[in-house]
Amino acid sequence: MRGVTDEVSGAGARMHDLVRRMYPICRSITGSGVRQTLDIIGEHLPLQRVEVPSGTQAHDWTVSDEWNVADAYIADKDGRRLVDFREHNLHLVGYSVPVRATMTLAELRPHLHTHEAHPDWIPYRTTYYHRDWGFCLSQRQLDALGEGPFEVVVDTTLQPGSLSYAELLVPGEVEDELLLSAHICHPSMANDNLSGIAVSVELAQALLRRQDRRLSYRFLFSPGTIGSIVWLSEHAVGLPNIRHGLVLTGLGGPGPLVYKRTRHGRRPIDRAAAHVVSRLDGDVRDYSPYGYDERQFNAIGFDLPVGRLSRTPHGEYPEYHTSADDLDFVRAEQLADSLGALLRILEAVEHDAVYRNLSPYGEPQLGRRKLYPTMGGRAASDEVMAMLWTLAYSDGSTSLLDIAERGEVDFTQLRAAATKLADADLLERVEL
Amino acid sequence: MRGVTDEVSGAGARMHDLVRRMYPICRSITGSGVRQTLDIIGEHLPLQRVEVPSGTQAHDWTVSDEWNVADAYIADKDGRRLVDFREHNLHLVGYSVPVRATMTLAELRPHLHTHEAHPDWIPYRTTYYHRDWGFCLSQRQLDALGEGPFEVVVDTTLQPGSLSYAELLVPGEVEDELLLSAHICHPSMANDNLSGIAVSVELAQALLRRQDRRLSYRFLFSPGTIGSIVWLSEHAVGLPNIRHGLVLTGLGGPGPLVYKRTRHGRRPIDRAAAHVVSRLDGDVRDYSPYGYDERQFNAIGFDLPVGRLSRTPHGEYPEYHTSADDLDFVRAEQLADSLGALLRILEAVEHDAVYRNLSPYGEPQLGRRKLYPTMGGRAASDEVMAMLWTLAYSDGSTSLLDIAERGEVDFTQLRAAATKLADADLLERVEL
Amino acid sequence: MRGVTDEVSGAGARMHDLVRRMYPICRSITGSGVRQTLDIIGEHLPLQRVEVPSGTQAHDWTVSDEWNVADAYIADKDGRRLVDFREHNLHLVGYSVPVRATMTLAELRPHLHTHEAHPDWIPYRTTYYHRDWGFCLSQRQLDALGEGPFEVVVDTTLQPGSLSYAELLVPGEVEDELLLSAHICHPSMANDNLSGIAVSVELAQALLRRQDRRLSYRFLFSPGTIGSIVWLSEHAVGLPNIRHGLVLTGLGGPGPLVYKRTRHGRRPIDRAAAHVVSRLDGDVRDYSPYGYDERQFNAIGFDLPVGRLSRTPHGEYPEYHTSADDLDFVRAEQLADSLGALLRILEAVEHDAVYRNLSPYGEPQLGRRKLYPTMGGRAASDEVMAMLWTLAYSDGSTSLLDIAERGEVDFTQLRAAATKLADADLLERVEL
Repeated sequence: MRGVTDEVSGAGARMHDLVRRMYPICRSITGSGVRQTLDIIGEHLPLQRVEVPSGTQAHDWTVSDEWNVADAYIADKDGRRLVDFREHNLHLVGYSVPVRATMTLAELRPHLHTHEAHPDWIPYRTTYYHRDWGFCLSQRQLDALGEGPFEVVVDTTLQPGSLSYAELLVPGEVEDELLLSAHICHPSMANDNLSGIAVSVELAQALLRRQDRRLSYRFLFSPGTIGSIVWLSEHAVGLPNIRHGLVLTGLGGPGPLVYKRTRHGRRPIDRAAAHVVSRLDGDVRDYSPYGYDERQFNAIGFDLPVGRLSRTPHGEYPEYHTSADDLDFVRAEQLADSLGALLRILEAVEHDAVYRNLSPYGEPQLGRRKLYPTMGGRAASDEVMAMLWTLAYSDGSTSLLDIAERGEVDFTQLRAAATKLADADLLERVEL
Repeated sequence: MRGVTDEVSGAGARMHDLVRRMYPICRSITGSGVRQTLDIIGEHLPLQRVEVPSGTQAHDWTVSDEWNVADAYIADKDGRRLVDFREHNLHLVGYSVPVRATMTLAELRPHLHTHEAHPDWIPYRTTYYHRDWGFCLSQRQLDALGEGPFEVVVDTTLQPGSLSYAELLVPGEVEDELLLSAHICHPSMANDNLSGIAVSVELAQALLRRQDRRLSYRFLFSPGTIGSIVWLSEHAVGLPNIRHGLVLTGLGGPGPLVYKRTRHGRRPIDRAAAHVVSRLDGDVRDYSPYGYDERQFNAIGFDLPVGRLSRTPHGEYPEYHTSADDLDFVRAEQLADSLGALLRILEAVEHDAVYRNLSPYGEPQLGRRKLYPTMGGRAASDEVMAMLWTLAYSDGSTSLLDIAERGEVDFTQLRAAATKLADADLLERVEL
Repeated sequence: MRGVTDEVSGAGARMHDLVRRMYPICRSITGSGVRQTLDIIGEHLPLQRVEVPSGTQAHDWTVSDEWNVADAYIADKDGRRLVDFREHNLHLVGYSVPVRATMTLAELRPHLHTHEAHPDWIPYRTTYYHRDWGFCLSQRQLDALGEGPFEVVVDTTLQPGSLSYAELLVPGEVEDELLLSAHICHPSMANDNLSGIAVSVELAQALLRRQDRRLSYRFLFSPGTIGSIVWLSEHAVGLPNIRHGLVLTGLGGPGPLVYKRTRHGRRPIDRAAAHVVSRLDGDVRDYSPYGYDERQFNAIGFDLPVGRLSRTPHGEYPEYHTSADDLDFVRAEQLADSLGALLRILEAVEHDAVYRNLSPYGEPQLGRRKLYPTMGGRAASDEVMAMLWTLAYSDGSTSLLDIAERGEVDFTQLRAAATKLADADLLERVEL
């Protein structure tokens, strides 16, 4: 897998299995589905779980009442379920209040949501902060409904309870942290965001296996918006330790990798991710204040250096926020490819370093150190080029990532070159 | 008209009427045609008129003798006028000295000017600063002239008099001025520069109607080059008040809007105009020392921040400086479109402001303030996006125009968003 | 020749003749071929020749033993030479050690080198720093060899001697130097680098003829890598005088001019060369640590501002490092075109200057100084535009090259304009 084969071999299939297992659960920003999801993650990682009571104030927000669903359907006069939550949890608008009524189509219609462009798909809708209810269904289902009357049942509860999230700190040599955040509030959609959860789990396991972590890594699994705001409100003391961060989402679908910069735009995470993603023919974009929890981490009051890694982003693929974001849309290879890119980004953040050329008067004679081909006249290999770049720019203040950007040379190759040159006493590492 | 409909409705037709009325007059850098033109403008605006005597020194220049035309023609031996100033004032080279002679074609030919590419068009020529004379005519007229002899009459006067210009100050809350300058020295050409005059008149009237002008606006109607140099020489004391400026010319022809930057290149007027013009699919260009009176305003000794707004610029449309720059070439819709863009530029200059986000810890909950849609799952509207951009970057030092540039968001929408957010106590304006 | 016609007329043919004369000689990093080449250059220029004994230490390198070739061939059992150094000196791998043996094809094969893509071409190989031997031959020759046995003879000597180089200082008014370096170690290849030598010789002669040199010019003719490192090691005291420099190589082949920036990237030589080369539709590239002796001059310990001028660079044309880089590949017109560009680059480095506009309040009236056309209404000429650019930006701190870059105006035209304006007392030169 492009330089990180060992860590991601087999990972694609494992991640897809994890997505498959979490897929049927009905999640929302609160409720038992979130807890079940955290239970599953907890089978793989030593999570620290947190419950935050309804009504808790978090900056400008208040934790909602907890929402749980027993059942929901639209049935005809014979009791046949025409639209059924048990068939697909997207059928029920998230946070729908309880309803039990007999309605004609005309009365019901304002509560029905379909997808304009795709008559077979069920859209995804929520009404977290406004007491309302509704059903989402395919256009074909709507066309076949008839005029009613219908038995309409929304058997939900919306009452004081708590919001659930979990985190995991993988400690390193230093207290500086790299935050990895995935939202866990979406019901049966595979790419948004079971893919982000699965990649996080696989990455956390890989990091836990390593002996040589310099940075500490903090994983956050929380409901979108309200979850990250609650977490930010509870972690004010530790926030300064967060030196880098990534929101992980939409990592299993097709399309190229897309990195979205931090609001600041030139943090180390931005440079590392832009380097890796652009070398993998991905896309690097400036910050915009719409999207996922990067909106909260980057808000002026926190200003955390948190970018976002995805494949084709929200709103740019037709399956987004519909029932077509399913287990076929997400593929093991794409999950593995995303994980591979993520590992390379973390490598560049963790291992960027500044060296000083110890033989700066012209090129050192690499040949007598067995670092240069003996037969002259042919073009240089990538390996030799990486050594030449490292020697040419290691002036005691230019880092490997600086060189990678300037020379458009692979960071992993530069890191290997620096190690070889340091072993040959041609380079020494400079502590800044 | 793209967000400023009220102010420009009906304006297109009014401006085209004004162009039509000024079109027949023979103008030059001095003379009665300039005064007639200022009389017409004076019917719409309370102008301050100035006459500067011939011989007056203005920096490196001297005001010329005044030039007036009684008649001019080339007639055949039967007295039939073959080329006649009364038919089109472009037929006479501007500032031609008096002539009364009988000449063969061979003798006359060095004084005749035609248009290489367009055999039906009369070109425009002047000889302001070199005593000479000549006729401009279409190639077809030249081909039909015959060998002569011809009666050649140039009945002009060139004698001490004065140079005429006018200005209008529309005062605002502050003494800081935005200068709007249009040249008034071109004879019967509609785009260059009756369009600039007409847009200036309509704009000045609109500004005079407003109650809430922060900036003061100064309008200058003067002959090209010598007129602006004379004005600059007479206004040395007030020049520091000029904080922004635009030369207005060629605003009625086809083609996209074109903004030419100031010599400095990053003045507020440059940023505002570049933002508006590029959003209207226009063209933004760097300064070059050729063109209209921006050459004088931007000269090193003055260094005034004066850009230039036009549609397709001088020399880039074939009708330029010919009889084809006529009342059909200039159209009401194009004049109105130009005025609309100009109003948006002035809005961005006048209303750029810096705000501070009063709820900076994550996004404020817009929904409970009725500023966010209650049903989740769909993409954000432009209106919501403008609020999110404003909140995300209003850190007390970033202005709305900074945000507009960064996010490629419409300034007018950001301004509306800021007003709404300030009304909701989520934003406060910062006085810098 | 694009503004420098006088100096380069006839030069193309002279340079091609010089290439032709040097072509047959077998050169390497040491040996009699290098001395013969310097003898020929010495016929045209008053060279200072230097011999550096084998074993001399130069920074990280040691001067090799001297290598000379008496004969080398592969013959069949009848003594017929199948591969013969006397037919083409590329047949012998450079620095091959002596061999005299009878070998089968199987035994010989590891010592044979062919060109993958071009079966008729002989590749170029060397083994300077590893005791080895080999033959280069066309694929067709290899296919026709048969199984042997062969008589293999490499009659070379590799023993203590010296490395040869030469330099020439063309002194100017100031001690600041512009270094021009060409490598002289390649055997029979015309573009790489007899073209660089020939252009250097012609340029040095042109400079020696001039009376008005402000800069001093230093020409270096030395073997690649080891030669420049030895020279750098011996000139530590004078290095700070080198304010600009160019490695000259590959200047006779086809394709556009290519300028490779210094490691720093924004030295005066970079700006001058980028301006000239881009105006000639050439290509400007950033530094990379691979190529010719710019690698040594730009090394961190020296950090000399030395760029590189070539046409299509090494490795980007198929004839590179093969027998097809011959006297037909290099053409007189291309050599002359390269010299013309080089002279324009040196003009921009030597004559860049800062002026102050003495009539800065609006444009000066150029017409009364006979610097502006008397008849108005038409577009400005390049000559007038160059004057307007110079006046508009000569504020006492902006140089002609700054203006050339900003306005994309030809430096030579700006220099002519500045001279004319200074003669008219509109501009004065500022000593910085």
